[in-house]
Amino acid sequence: MAHRLRIAVIGGTASGTAAAAEAKRANPEAEVVLFEQNTYVAFGACEIPYFVGGWLQSPDQLIALTPEEFERTRKVKVRVLHRVEALYPRERRLVYRHLAYNSVHERTFDRFILAVGARPRRLQLPGEEAPNVFYVRLLEDAVGMREYLESEPVRHVVVVGGGYIGVEMAEVLRLRGLQVTLLEPTGKLLNTMIEDELRPLVHRKLEAEGIILRQEGVVGFEQNAAGLVQAVVTDRKEKIGCQMVVVAIGVQPNVELAIQAGIQLGKTGAIAVDDQMHTSSPNVWACGDCIEVKRVVDRTPIYLPLSPNAFRTARVAARNATRMGRGRPAVFPGVTPASAVKIFGLEIAAVGLSLQQAKERGFDAVSVTIKHWSQAPVMPGARPVYVRLIVERGTARLLGGEVLGEDGAALRADILIPFVRQGLRADDLEETDLIYTPPVAPARDPLWIAASAARKVALTPVEKRIRLHTTKTSRE
Amino acid sequence: MAHRLRIAVIGGTASGTAAAAEAKRANPEAEVVLFEQNTYVAFGACEIPYFVGGWLQSPDQLIALTPEEFERTRKVKVRVLHRVEALYPRERRLVYRHLAYNSVHERTFDRFILAVGARPRRLQLPGEEAPNVFYVRLLEDAVGMREYLESEPVRHVVVVGGGYIGVEMAEVLRLRGLQVTLLEPTGKLLNTMIEDELRPLVHRKLEAEGIILRQEGVVGFEQNAAGLVQAVVTDRKEKIGCQMVVVAIGVQPNVELAIQAGIQLGKTGAIAVDDQMHTSSPNVWACGDCIEVKRVVDRTPIYLPLSPNAFRTARVAARNATRMGRGRPAVFPGVTPASAVKIFGLEIAAVGLSLQQAKERGFDAVSVTIKHWSQAPVMPGARPVYVRLIVERGTARLLGGEVLGEDGAALRADILIPFVRQGLRADDLEETDLIYTPPVAPARDPLWIAASAARKVALTPVEKRIRLHTTKTSRE
Repeated sequence: MAHRLRIAVIGGTASGTAAAAEAKRANPEAEVVLFEQNTYVAFGACEIPYFVGGWLQSPDQLIALTPEEFERTRKVKVRVLHRVEALYPRERRLVYRHLAYNSVHERTFDRFILAVGARPRRLQLPGEEAPNVFYVRLLEDAVGMREYLESEPVRHVVVVGGGYIGVEMAEVLRLRGLQVTLLEPTGKLLNTMIEDELRPLVHRKLEAEGIILRQEGVVGFEQNAAGLVQAVVTDRKEKIGCQMVVVAIGVQPNVELAIQAGIQLGKTGAIAVDDQMHTSSPNVWACGDCIEVKRVVDRTPIYLPLSPNAFRTARVAARNATRMGRGRPAVFPGVTPASAVKIFGLEIAAVGLSLQQAKERGFDAVSVTIKHWSQAPVMPGARPVYVRLIVERGTARLLGGEVLGEDGAALRADILIPFVRQGLRADDLEETDLIYTPPVAPARDPLWIAASAARKVALTPVEKRIRLHTTKTSRE
Repeated sequence: MAHRLRIAVIGGTASGTAAAAEAKRANPEAEVVLFEQNTYVAFGACEIPYFVGGWLQSPDQLIALTPEEFERTRKVKVRVLHRVEALYPRERRLVYRHLAYNSVHERTFDRFILAVGARPRRLQLPGEEAPNVFYVRLLEDAVGMREYLESEPVRHVVVVGGGYIGVEMAEVLRLRGLQVTLLEPTGKLLNTMIEDELRPLVHRKLEAEGIILRQEGVVGFEQNAAGLVQAVVTDRKEKIGCQMVVVAIGVQPNVELAIQAGIQLGKTGAIAVDDQMHTSSPNVWACGDCIEVKRVVDRTPIYLPLSPNAFRTARVAARNATRMGRGRPAVFPGVTPASAVKIFGLEIAAVGLSLQQAKERGFDAVSVTIKHWSQAPVMPGARPVYVRLIVERGTARLLGGEVLGEDGAALRADILIPFVRQGLRADDLEETDLIYTPPVAPARDPLWIAASAARKVALTPVEKRIRLHTTKTSRE
């Protein structure tokens, strides 16, 4: 090879480090340079709540490898405190600022991988920058929250936003013994994950654990003389006194660099890529939380910034960015959305399409919900499990599902994913063996009971919906 | 209808009660009579160890419904203490003994469902009938063991047989504080469930919990003057003193009635049925632990006496036995073997074909084993998970798998079942989303790591097997 391939990976969190490492694996001859504006790479944001809650002891546990370890083990050149400020794909050139010296430089590369991630949505209210208002995204957010909790007399925390990060933060703060108020303007916790049918069980669990839920939005902050927020002002004109605020109202993709570079965005507002993770610009691939991905069930692009997607799209982007025309390109097959949260021992998991999404995508869909047990009903460890299935009327095709319970609900939801992904039906699920042993599952697994109910509802011509159809067991 | 269909169900445990109830549901006009030689019906044998161990309080918890409740709620005529001693399918006649009076009677029916189950294999040694030697099958076995443990000064129990019932019994007796010796002549615990690769982890767990494992068979019993066994004599001429013996060396189908009736048995020695659960005799269907079932992956009949199969084959048998020529017959699609055991918190699960079975069936199969974590590796609840996959060389088709671990291993094995059943490949598993949230699963799920390793091994032309390929995590 006359020329040594030079690859720039922009962004060094989950997808950036995965892309850089995979690029070097795929093409060991290539020069791979990782640009990261923070002081660290290989950071895992998902564990922030558990660090703040004290489940993890050191912030080092949030970092898989130091920049030096990553450089040494992956043979990638790591450039921390390097912020890429402009990208010129046709000229194969980028402009970066070295933040330690505030100096601006430029370099040329052959190919670029954009892994610039996402950032938390902001309330855009005065007071938001107060030292006791926190977001849940960066290492400094994690360390900041924990230091603040350990050094200041915090008694009451207001968490703004009832998505999965909001409820996780509410959980860990409550388990620290704090008073916690959770504000969600829609009044619907986990609104993008589950629908209304099982939601009351989530609300009840959080309230039983002492979290105060309020259907209110934030319209302002009241600050004290020192600039600290001492109360949150809500859209019901209430003031909620507090010593700390955590804002978790979602994330948005970082697309400024892509826009500057003339790279096309998709309908979701994230960077558009093809199934090889190639952007609209010839030498630029992208991966992770800054891109949109194709949902398999309806082949529609969605924005789904989840860690496994970051890793998987990174590997595809890296393999294709390092290809020199040999072999077949790597392809990302798309996603079957799957997510879960575990709070106070209760697992809430959702896969595939919600009923509303299914209807929006033109499916004649119907849902069915059952309650059964996680183990043989007589076992002392048996806990209720709720299964909700979304199926297509007339075919009983499985489009999605929700599983909720204290004992294995998330892994039971995993079992549904291949069925949704492969376009299989409720009767295929009924006919598929599932493990039975009294301390692990009942002889008639909750998924079978749900599948049977879903098949009947989907294939019954009359509009007779079974609502929270509860099976008879010897414990009821 | 000129004639009211009369159906005899012979045997009233899991499959018999399920068949009788389903027959009445499918054809409410039919007269359904359930013949059971014991005093109870609807008994669940799988929970016996947990009753003996004291996890369940009352023997009533082993019985879903009393004969009276079953008769009343299912509209089935229940005849307990009725032992069917002969069946004449062509004459549509059966002969039964009323055990309360030792009187013999006969009745004609239109159709018969054989649900006569299985019985424990016996050692066939003198002393086996001693009052302190127990089997693990019937309600009287369960009550007998518990009464004996609660009334006699038992310190040391010898469990004979290292299959799943043997290890479950060893666990619950050990948790009662007893000294437990487990004898398995092959030296291989769970030998029909898992293969040698992960077995040492099972042995180590049981030994760590204080169970004495011995690779010995039983050749005799030493009885005291009262007739109680006071020592087990092994094939190494050792005497193991004990106050109680539990024998769990497998089960065999009850086929005597079928043989008398001229009904054909299959190669496994159990009753042969077609996929409608019809036997070789015109008016006789069969279900449950007395039949053999078809394994989907290779369409071979196997003997797999598991509770879910009992229920599922019962429903098919009942629907077809009650059909009056209308509609399509019910079909049992066959099984993808799946079983698990949970001992001292360790779950051991196996699905599909073992490597040996795959090779016996002509597959060019190879296996791969990985170790990863049940949760995000930094989480305090993360436990090791071992995944072993059996794949076909050249295609990476998933033929089977084993999962072992303390946190969700059995439900993770469930996720593999649809892949094995549908003939999907390791790369299909790699491309299928799985749930990630730190307290439930790592960002790279153990199943993905195993699938990736399996794909590489199956598709690598060289004979380079990865043995216990351990991934690097921040905890290792």
